[in-house]
Amino acid sequence: MEGAPLSALCSPALVVDVDKVKRNAQRMMERCNQLGVQLRPHMKTHKTLECADIMTGGSRRCIVVSTLAEATFYADHGFDDILYAYSLPFDKVERCAALSERLDLFQVLLDHPDALERLRKRPLKDGRRWHVWLKLDCGNGRAGVLHSEPETLQLARAVAEADGVELTGVYAHCGNTYNCKGVEQIQAVAQETTSFTLQFMEKLKAVGISCKSSIGSTPSCSHPVPDMGKLNEVHPGNYVFYDVQQSMIGSCSLEDVAVRVLTRVVGHCPHRNQLLIDCGWTGISLDGAGKLPTGYAMIEGHPDLKLLSMTQEHGRVEPISGPLDYSKYPIGSLLTLIPYHSCAAAAMHPVYHVHSEGRLMGKWTPTRGW
Amino acid sequence: MEGAPLSALCSPALVVDVDKVKRNAQRMMERCNQLGVQLRPHMKTHKTLECADIMTGGSRRCIVVSTLAEATFYADHGFDDILYAYSLPFDKVERCAALSERLDLFQVLLDHPDALERLRKRPLKDGRRWHVWLKLDCGNGRAGVLHSEPETLQLARAVAEADGVELTGVYAHCGNTYNCKGVEQIQAVAQETTSFTLQFMEKLKAVGISCKSSIGSTPSCSHPVPDMGKLNEVHPGNYVFYDVQQSMIGSCSLEDVAVRVLTRVVGHCPHRNQLLIDCGWTGISLDGAGKLPTGYAMIEGHPDLKLLSMTQEHGRVEPISGPLDYSKYPIGSLLTLIPYHSCAAAAMHPVYHVHSEGRLMGKWTPTRGW
Repeated sequence: MEGAPLSALCSPALVVDVDKVKRNAQRMMERCNQLGVQLRPHMKTHKTLECADIMTGGSRRCIVVSTLAEATFYADHGFDDILYAYSLPFDKVERCAALSERLDLFQVLLDHPDALERLRKRPLKDGRRWHVWLKLDCGNGRAGVLHSEPETLQLARAVAEADGVELTGVYAHCGNTYNCKGVEQIQAVAQETTSFTLQFMEKLKAVGISCKSSIGSTPSCSHPVPDMGKLNEVHPGNYVFYDVQQSMIGSCSLEDVAVRVLTRVVGHCPHRNQLLIDCGWTGISLDGAGKLPTGYAMIEGHPDLKLLSMTQEHGRVEPISGPLDYSKYPIGSLLTLIPYHSCAAAAMHPVYHVHSEGRLMGKWTPTRGW
Repeated sequence: MEGAPLSALCSPALVVDVDKVKRNAQRMMERCNQLGVQLRPHMKTHKTLECADIMTGGSRRCIVVSTLAEATFYADHGFDDILYAYSLPFDKVERCAALSERLDLFQVLLDHPDALERLRKRPLKDGRRWHVWLKLDCGNGRAGVLHSEPETLQLARAVAEADGVELTGVYAHCGNTYNCKGVEQIQAVAQETTSFTLQFMEKLKAVGISCKSSIGSTPSCSHPVPDMGKLNEVHPGNYVFYDVQQSMIGSCSLEDVAVRVLTRVVGHCPHRNQLLIDCGWTGISLDGAGKLPTGYAMIEGHPDLKLLSMTQEHGRVEPISGPLDYSKYPIGSLLTLIPYHSCAAAAMHPVYHVHSEGRLMGKWTPTRGW
């Protein structure tokens, strides 16, 4: 298939524009260089070796993952300095210990005293220490200890003082940037998260503790505020693909979105003024419901069409207004969907088809599971 | 892991109660025997060899699939008499031809004259003929030609008369049973679909054409009407797992649902009156949004809890009313989710863990892709 046009692919198919991937990765590296902050890219969006190589500039060092399956996959392929940025799951302590004993630098994260207890009960071999990040909630409202609570400082001290454990850093995910619209709002959240994190670092310093600091999200790292240069690391991930959601937030332009789902017309339904396409929720996920005037995705070059609903292997497409001109969409013709959420769309595909300027270059195979 | 309790699994994990699977399969076989209709079970819900063996009573014959990847997977493992029940995709004609030339009985489906043209342009080798089902829309409103239109009879005749092509049957999916509540409504749709299909068969007979007829959906086949005995086949699929949606429609009781997603508590958020669990949309899908008072799933044994929202690897759980009693849900404790839609939940998992009475028996590995 190498060198063939995208139309040679059976659909549905997730296709990746490798030039845009490289450009998105390069821009993030340059942005971080200019800020003077270490980029630790997140792998959760793509979960492939090839894209990880692009995001790390080939170093295979300094990454974040969302699952232990990712951590193991990357470790098995020579990656190291891996941060498993998920509040230590008690069912996976032994697997985390094995990675900690095998890699130069495997790092875990926690946000509860019970998790510290679990680590203390499983000392690592050969005098190794657990490398632990403290997860801070700076307003995102998901995992993490609240940055402002006295218990948070207590937990940080307990980690720093525990035998066999090292407080490696403080980690905050500013996922609340996903509620923003435009650079100004993104930067307000980025500034707030940065300030809260730096304030917490000051509190640590005051009790004699020094460690790294890291914040991240694709919106904030696409439009960083100068104070982020005072942090040690940032950890965005989605930026390598971007998506419609990010373009609406203001992280990127639609031009920057590197992934598409190819689909074909498989039915004409003039009695319902609809088309059927071969992309159902197995091809793009149900993420984005109710968010776009064009339904579950944007249909490239057809702003007048809406992906109204999906079942397992079918999508129903209708015009936003007026009657459908079926002569424009013969059965078998290709349509190109720009995903609302590329992480969710990619998660549905066992393989991604990579192209440069519309010519197929090869396949990337993601890891799955936990 | 064999013989270990479910709690030995890392979460999230899709677990299958093999006894319920066998019971659901057995009941459907008995129901079809009593009706005097051939059961052609659909594989789309599970996509595994093991479950296909249970659904076909070990015959490895007479199945329906939703993707060509499924068809190839089953063909590669000795299955035959496979109906690819998807309006002939023009990008996959050559792959369909290869299966038609390799299997005793590979069957395709169409609902457009252009599809017939595609088949005629690709005659099969060795004097083989394309086995073609005509997809009828009897009120479901997705794929298929309208049962009542004169063009539909014309298309059936064109298929029957074309060289190298055989009209094998007429196929209707009564997915509109999914809008029903209770047996009475289900049976009204089942009766309507059956009547429309049988009326169409009469029209065919009047012009000298005889072929098979098949309708199906899990609700209608769980509560068949006597007239369905006049059909040749039925083709339900989801019944082998069932799910919360089917119990709400009235296809089954909650007791019959054979799958669960195991998850663990990974965070306490008393300032938000929430728990975090390790099941995000990668673990159960976003299907079912807004359908249940308990959110995206039911939490077994905890009717007072709601799975409010999910991100990639986190679920937010809160009480339906009142304050959360955190002492009941220590970090690391197991919760069991009953999926709203088992097809969608299963699609997120690279492996299913099979148990009998809570003791692990092994793993089933589904096929994916197209």
